[in-house]
Formats: sequence, structure tokens, C-alpha cells
Amino acid sequence: MHVVVPFAATDPKTRLESVLSPTERSAFARAMLADVLSAIVEAGQKPTVVSTAPIDPAELDLPTHVLEAVSVAVDDRPLTDAVNARLPSGEHSDHGDEGPSEAVAVVMADLALAATDALEDLFATETAVAIAPGRGGGTNALVVRDPAFRVDYHGASYLDHREIAEEVGASLETVDSLRLGTDIDEPDDLVEVLVHGDERARAPETLRDLGFELERRDGRVGVVRCEPADRDR
Amino acid sequence: MHVVVPFAATDPKTRLESVLSPTERSAFARAMLADVLSAIVEAGQKPTVVSTAPIDPAELDLPTHVLEAVSVAVDDRPLTDAVNARLPSGEHSDHGDEGPSEAVAVVMADLALAATDALEDLFATETAVAIAPGRGGGTNALVVRDPAFRVDYHGASYLDHREIAEEVGASLETVDSLRLGTDIDEPDDLVEVLVHGDERARAPETLRDLGFELERRDGRVGVVRCEPADRDR
Repeated sequence: MHVVVPFAATDPKTRLESVLSPTERSAFARAMLADVLSAIVEAGQKPTVVSTAPIDPAELDLPTHVLEAVSVAVDDRPLTDAVNARLPSGEHSDHGDEGPSEAVAVVMADLALAATDALEDLFATETAVAIAPGRGGGTNALVVRDPAFRVDYHGASYLDHREIAEEVGASLETVDSLRLGTDIDEPDDLVEVLVHGDERARAPETLRDLGFELERRDGRVGVVRCEPADRDR
Repeated sequence: MHVVVPFAATDPKTRLESVLSPTERSAFARAMLADVLSAIVEAGQKPTVVSTAPIDPAELDLPTHVLEAVSVAVDDRPLTDAVNARLPSGEHSDHGDEGPSEAVAVVMADLALAATDALEDLFATETAVAIAPGRGGGTNALVVRDPAFRVDYHGASYLDHREIAEEVGASLETVDSLRLGTDIDEPDDLVEVLVHGDERARAPETLRDLGFELERRDGRVGVVRCEPADRDR
């Protein structure tokens, strides 16, 4: 299986701009990417980061065995085009000996809670298409085994992907995982990183280093930033 | 296993008051309860609704085999107290022949996406405590097999329950399910009911009857209410 992790290297996570400076957003996005790559490698796969601009994986502070398994491809096209080029029978789909029909998994770089168990379940699906949906109809991770299937990430992609699978006659399974279903886009999502993040993971460590901690409010828990510190915005 | 479904029968789902009238909120809460009860019965269990006020299950429009498996107990105490009374060794924990130490599951009534598969996975856990967390540190469903464990639903209950389990030396498993992790509290949550709700389920049908439908916005999908209709608020 070929595993692709699309990554927006420039000005990432703009919906977090109310709580993080540009430099902080960049650091946090890279910390989430590092956690996602580690989980994929622990699940037995060798991920390719498809980045909108050159990045140096050595700067992601990955464990050596993870760093050795990661490669980077630069592709500045929109997400949908960059992914479709790498699906089975896409223009960049020749993944060596296994040929153009090797299964391709696409895992978003902001799945800060992505756990090895959940990824193994996703990778072990046997349908032509398998999707781990996110909130709001998003497609957080998927596996494609049918060369006729193409992605369309614009709008309610989970529903669109179900329709596309039906159109091309591809069997589809939905993978039920809160960890894969939690993409970190907005300030409220930071709670999930601090509640569920692994002790050793980079993303919660990055948030804690920036002064974020859990605040127990009435009913639910929120985040509060305790050290104003120097902000560059 | 004894399965408890706490239900706030009076003025439920107040955080939906910006989009639903009191009568509509009551109807929608009962539709979600019906879906949760059906999923529990399909998972092989006989649920007890622990309701803050008397309700008639016959009015929930349940399939006959589900209705026959459901019982109702009225308990107007706060959620934490009403649940603790029904945990193993609690005051209401005598579940007949199986004795006071029978495992007890607690499944919230607003898990509109609760699927039989996910509940079966939860019920099949073997740890002293198993929790399916929700967003924001909530405890959406749990199984308790240790008489020393007590719930505390106030605040960040998932973190509190982890701490309580550790304090009493109870083994704990977290169940990773987006379906069990999605409680329907706020207007934005209605999207999930319409995106993932089963065709035959009552909650999405109720929303559609009230004029709600998916609206594909940029990036994510939202809900829009198309028929203002008669509103009683």
C-alpha cells in the first residue's frame, strides 16, 4: 500500500489564526504532521508527504526509524489534483514493483489523534474504497483500490465520495473512528488534542509549550492560554 | 449486562433552542431516544430508560420487538446520582438473577448515530471500565464492571472517569467510535444526523420533516431549514 499525506506547507491552519500566530501555526501543523507520520509508520507503512512546498523531514524531529520511512514529494496543485495524480492509474501512480494498481491511502496531516490501531483498521479494509469521515461531511482518511475512483475534496467530500464510488461501481466501507474523525481546524478542536493526545506525541507537547492547557468549564472542557508570551502577529 | 439510557424528559436539548421550538426539541429528543433504543436492542440488550419524568415507550413509535425489550424507570435526581444508583452495587443495582455485580452500560439518549456495530464493540469490552468519549471531554457511553467505580458527569467527565478508574484500580479501555462519540447538542451537530443517519432512523426523518436539509457550503457542509412552517416559540 502507498500512503500519501497531503501537507499545506505555507501558511497552514488559517482557521486557527485567532489563537496562534503564523509562526506558531506552522510549528503546530508540523507537529501534527510528525504525529501522523509516526502513527502511519507504526502501522507498518512508508508514507509520502505530498507538500505544497519543499520541506525537510529532518526538521520534523521524528524518531530515526520514522524519518527513514518518510519521503517527500512537492506538488503545488490543489489538493484534489495532487491526490488524484497519485491514486491507482493516476499520473504518479507507478509505485514500483507493485504496479499502478497498488492500493493508495490518503491520510490528512491534521489528524492529530490518529492512532496506529485506527490506521491499521483503515488499511486492513478490503472494499474498493474505504473512508474515515470527519465532522461536517469531510473525508479525513481514505483507501482507494479501484482505478476508476477519483477524489473531490471540495465541499461535502464524504457524501461526494460515496456518490463517486456508487457511480463507478466501487464497493465502499465507512470506518468508524473518533480518532481518525477528528481533524484539527478550529480553536475548539484544540481541546481534543489536549484531552486525547498521547503523552509522547508532538502536537499536545507543542500546545503545552505555547501555554495552552485544559480549562474545566461547566458541562464541557475548553482550552485556555496561560502565558501571553511573545507573539509575532 | 444491564443497559441504562438516561433521558431528560422535560425541556430537553435546550442548546438547540435557537433552531427548534420546545415542541420540536421534545419530538427530536424522543426520535433520537428511539434510535438509540433500537440500536441497543439490535445489539442484543434490553435497555432501561431512566427518565426524569414518566414517558410512555408506546409513544416512541418503536418496532414491536424493540418496544417489548424496553422498560422505563423514573428518577428525577441529577444524572450522576441516577446513574450511580444503577451501577454495580448501587441502590438500584439488583438486576435479578444475575445479582448486583452484573455489568452496567450507560448510553446517552442523544447519540443519534449510535450503530449496533459500535455498541456491540462497547459491550464486548472486558476491562473493568470502558468509555466511548465524546467531543469536549464528555462520556457518551460507558460500561462498568467494577463495583468500586462511580460516575461524575459534571465537567470534563472523560478525564474525571479516567482518574476515578485509576483511583479505584479499575482497568480502563477507551472505545474509538465516531458514531458513539457524536452527541447531538448544538445546531452544528444536526449536520451529522443528516450526513450519517440511517435511512430508516427516526432522528434524521424528524429533522427532514421539520424542513432541515443539508446545505453544501465552501469546505464543509451545513444545514439549512427550508420551510419556516408553524413554530410555537
